[in-house]
Parts: sequence; structure tokens; C-alpha cells
Amino acid sequence: MNLVLLEPSNFIAETRARLQGRALQHIREVHRANTGDTLRVGVVNGRIGRGTIESIHSDAVEMSIKLDTDPPSPLPLRLILALPRPKVLNRTIAAAASMGIREIDLINAWRVEKAYWESPKLSEENLREQSILGLEQAGDTVLPTIRLHKLFTPFVREQLPPTLEGKRALLAHPYASEEMPRQVRDSIVLAVGPEGGFIDREVETFREMGFSEVRLGPRILRVETALAALVGRLF
Amino acid sequence: MNLVLLEPSNFIAETRARLQGRALQHIREVHRANTGDTLRVGVVNGRIGRGTIESIHSDAVEMSIKLDTDPPSPLPLRLILALPRPKVLNRTIAAAASMGIREIDLINAWRVEKAYWESPKLSEENLREQSILGLEQAGDTVLPTIRLHKLFTPFVREQLPPTLEGKRALLAHPYASEEMPRQVRDSIVLAVGPEGGFIDREVETFREMGFSEVRLGPRILRVETALAALVGRLF
Repeated sequence: MNLVLLEPSNFIAETRARLQGRALQHIREVHRANTGDTLRVGVVNGRIGRGTIESIHSDAVEMSIKLDTDPPSPLPLRLILALPRPKVLNRTIAAAASMGIREIDLINAWRVEKAYWESPKLSEENLREQSILGLEQAGDTVLPTIRLHKLFTPFVREQLPPTLEGKRALLAHPYASEEMPRQVRDSIVLAVGPEGGFIDREVETFREMGFSEVRLGPRILRVETALAALVGRLF
Repeated sequence: MNLVLLEPSNFIAETRARLQGRALQHIREVHRANTGDTLRVGVVNGRIGRGTIESIHSDAVEMSIKLDTDPPSPLPLRLILALPRPKVLNRTIAAAASMGIREIDLINAWRVEKAYWESPKLSEENLREQSILGLEQAGDTVLPTIRLHKLFTPFVREQLPPTLEGKRALLAHPYASEEMPRQVRDSIVLAVGPEGGFIDREVETFREMGFSEVRLGPRILRVETALAALVGRLF
């Protein structure tokens, strides 16, 4: 936790916040912070600054808050991601949020197992919690917007295309002949497939909607590793 | 598992291999493979090809093996990594192996907790197992060489410098003014610090040994995310 993220509900006065639960535990056990210590803080979807501990007990910590910095700029990237296995989902959402990805569409695909859509990890609450873990790691405050699309075709053929204007649409695909571009200046829409990849018919649909297939390298990476490598390369 | 990695001991004849344990379980439960099916296989530190299942039972699978491809080229990167927390170590080793990193030096630093060096995860056996998981994910066969250096100064001041000739030595550092280079042609030695970073004195030591400090971006990433982003950007 490189930043303590405050919710509006944590403020008990304009410049004073009170925290309990996970954040309190982390401040006590990992930071081992005492009265008078300062910590990096930020407000969800807001500014960043310092919190000075006014009191800290087993039930709550109170800090006086001074916010003076804007959060880092978001990446100009919208991620279209085939829904990963529940075990992988949490890590992937946290990693994406930590890298500054602010728009994530989780979509269905032939190789996404139906059962994944029933996972409690897809609850709004869990997706928000994973995003917050990523932001607290990164030192950022802006939550990604995460949308779920249980039907591939209506999303890729109808909802997605009107949003692509002026953007560069890329499909990460292990067998593409074109290399993933580097240091792009455009706003990017990046589609990443499931384990085993999108099937040919899905690749064809993306192609018809204006996506270019690009490959990353000779190795098949786990989704969260691939995503970080793609972001490192694109921006 | 995108490739089944065979040890020399798995060969019961020149072109026939017999597997039990974790690989067998994966082939039965995830691939749900039957007699006659073919799987991608490779030999540890050797070539890649196809295995055709000749028999499969609850106690063993036997495959006829045809090897016809070299593994992907390794990355021209030696990683000098401050020993991560044991929980993070496994993921990081697997991710590094999956990306084609073939030389990893785990080193001490001021912010590495002493207890990390006592972790059973540092056993040769576990480091090899994590590497194999990474290689099987990536479709690669070549194990990284992983070395442990419990003393920072003798390693960075004495052992490391003679090996740096002709290479570009970079230190990933959040507060550096210079940006991480892109698409390098050189062979790279990359040092990555612990959570919280190397302390000033350590940064100074790296600098004296010829390392340049470079930054990745405005966000602080987890070590395995940072590593993938660095690799994506450098190569």
C-alpha cells in the first residue's frame, strides 16, 4: 500500500478523516505508524496528498488531511478482455488498475467457461475492492469503469464499433504476422483473448470491426503478464 | 500449461516418454486428453515438438515423442532482483522464466527483510519448479540460472562489475529523471529494487559500478507487473 485511499465517507470534517478495518490494520501492522507520522493519502477519484496521524487506536485512526496533487494521468487505453478464470481475475483487475487502465470490458468468448460468469468475484463490490488494491499499490486514486458483456456478438458487432472512431483498435493474437506497435500516440482499444486465444470466427469478427491483429513475441504469457508487457511496450 | 516439459528421466526409450504426478494430472484433468491425442512437448533445456499419447491411465501416461523445433531465443537480459517477499517470489520467478529471462541474481538490500532469506521457497527445488511452471506456460524449455547473494556489497562491488563489459547496465528507480529506454539492441543488465526501493547508498553503489537510473512511469507497480512492463518496453 503506497497510498491510503480514502472514501468520502471517511471524512469526519473537511480536512479530517477516520479509518477502520483493512486500512487501519495495514497502517498499524505494516506501516507501524504512530501519532505524528505522515502517510501518503488520496481520495477515491480525487486528489493526492499527505495524512498526519492525530490519533491511532485498535478501533480507528484519525488523520488530518492535506491534498495538493492530482493523480497521475490515465493511460489512453480501453481494455477488452475475455473473462479470465476467477482465480486470475482478481490479480488482473488489480494489475490493470495499478497501471492506469481506466476502462475495462470483460467479455464472453468461445473459450471462456460458462461457469466463470457465475463467480462471486464478478460482484461490483469485489471488482471495486480489487481496483482499490491496485490503486493503493500504484499511488493512484481513479477507479476503472468495469463493464460485463455476457454476449460476444452484440457487444463486438454493435456496442463497440461506434466508440472506436479516432482510436486505434488492436487485437493481441499469438499468431499474428504484424508486431505490436511501440510508443503509440493514439488512443488505443486493445482486445486480449482467453487462455487458448479467441477462435478464428471471433478473430474474424474483430477484424471486420476494424481491429488489427498484432503479436507480442514468441512466448505465451499469462494474462496479467501479457497485459503489463503490452502496456510497457505501447506507452 | 501450453507445453508439457519432459525431463531426461521421463524417457523410457529414445522417442518414448512416460509421465506421472503433476503433468499426468494436468493432461487428464485440464487437457482431458485420450489415446491418440497430440500435445505440445519439450525437453528441459532442449527442443520442442509433439507428443502422441500411446496410453493413458490413472498412474501414468506414455507418449511417442517427435522433437523438431528449437525453443524461442532467450532475452538478452540478466535480472538483478532484490529478494522479494516469499509470497511474491514464486510468481516473479515463474513470470521471469515465462518471458525468457535466463539469468536471475536474487540479492540482499537494506529493505529486504532478513527473514526472507530463511524461506523454504528459496530451495533449489522450489526455484526449479517455479521456473518449470513459467516455461510450461510460455512454451519454452530453457531453465533460468538463479543465483542467491546474501551480501549486497561484495556482489555489486566485486562480482558484478567484471561481467558488465559490453552490456548496458540499468537500475529501475521510481525517482530517476531519465526514462527507461525502448527497443534496445544491447545486452541488458537490469537491477530492480525491493518494495520501497533501494536506499540512496545502494543506488549510489550501483551508479559507481556504471548503472544508469531509469524510471518506468508515474505509478509504483508490483515487482512482477513492473518486470513485465520493463521487458515489454526494452525488447
